[in-house]
Amino acid sequence: MLIVFLIIRPAFSQKVEEDQIHTLLNKQVQSWNCGDLNGFMKGYWESDSLMFIGKKGVTYGYEQTLANYRKNYPDMDQMGELKFDLIKIDLLSSDAAFVIGKWSLKREKAGDVSGHFSLLFKKIKGQWMIVSDHSS
Amino acid sequence: MLIVFLIIRPAFSQKVEEDQIHTLLNKQVQSWNCGDLNGFMKGYWESDSLMFIGKKGVTYGYEQTLANYRKNYPDMDQMGELKFDLIKIDLLSSDAAFVIGKWSLKREKAGDVSGHFSLLFKKIKGQWMIVSDHSS
Repeated sequence: MLIVFLIIRPAFSQKVEEDQIHTLLNKQVQSWNCGDLNGFMKGYWESDSLMFIGKKGVTYGYEQTLANYRKNYPDMDQMGELKFDLIKIDLLSSDAAFVIGKWSLKREKAGDVSGHFSLLFKKIKGQWMIVSDHSS
Repeated sequence: MLIVFLIIRPAFSQKVEEDQIHTLLNKQVQSWNCGDLNGFMKGYWESDSLMFIGKKGVTYGYEQTLANYRKNYPDMDQMGELKFDLIKIDLLSSDAAFVIGKWSLKREKAGDVSGHFSLLFKKIKGQWMIVSDHSS
């Protein structure tokens, strides 16, 4: 039984999946630091079911999440320089992962801010995406 | 291939698992509202790897998490009356689940407070437990 299970289980390399998640987060940081919010948003699931939990509670959906980012970070001064420090990547299955980390924004005029995030990733159509972001 | 997979896949009822998670959270609320922090903590994984993300960043481990609760909620006045409003239970696999909800404390003297939580549950030795709590 076990042998059959192992054979038909989809190939799934922890290292490969973790690398893909790392790459996605690095691309988000690069986009943010170029002032490219649309590029940054590519890390998120483009769905009305995306959930973002922040200071003001829960935001539903990709469009509203993008709108909030645009409102809260209207220019490069407010956006500053983003840095992610990953604390943990927990691969829960072949298509779900949980990531904890620290975010910080270095900002000349608006002042530095930082906090933590916990992200639920899902692999949808072969692509890892953030489906839930809790940042505080 | 698919048929073989379905046959040997462990039995796993979404309803049953969700009910167990509901029950655990209800028990936490009951314990809290009796001033029983040890009972409340039974919902958490009793491990040094438990992670709690709160206002002050990341706390590691069951003992330190309990110590923080004791410090921040030293008496029934501070503890107040806890309520959880579940927003989403996402069963990710037979042994991992992601839960989002709202918490609120009704407190006469100390004043009401509320916020949101996202919890990663794992089923360890047949028992669902919170392994990561992000509350803000």
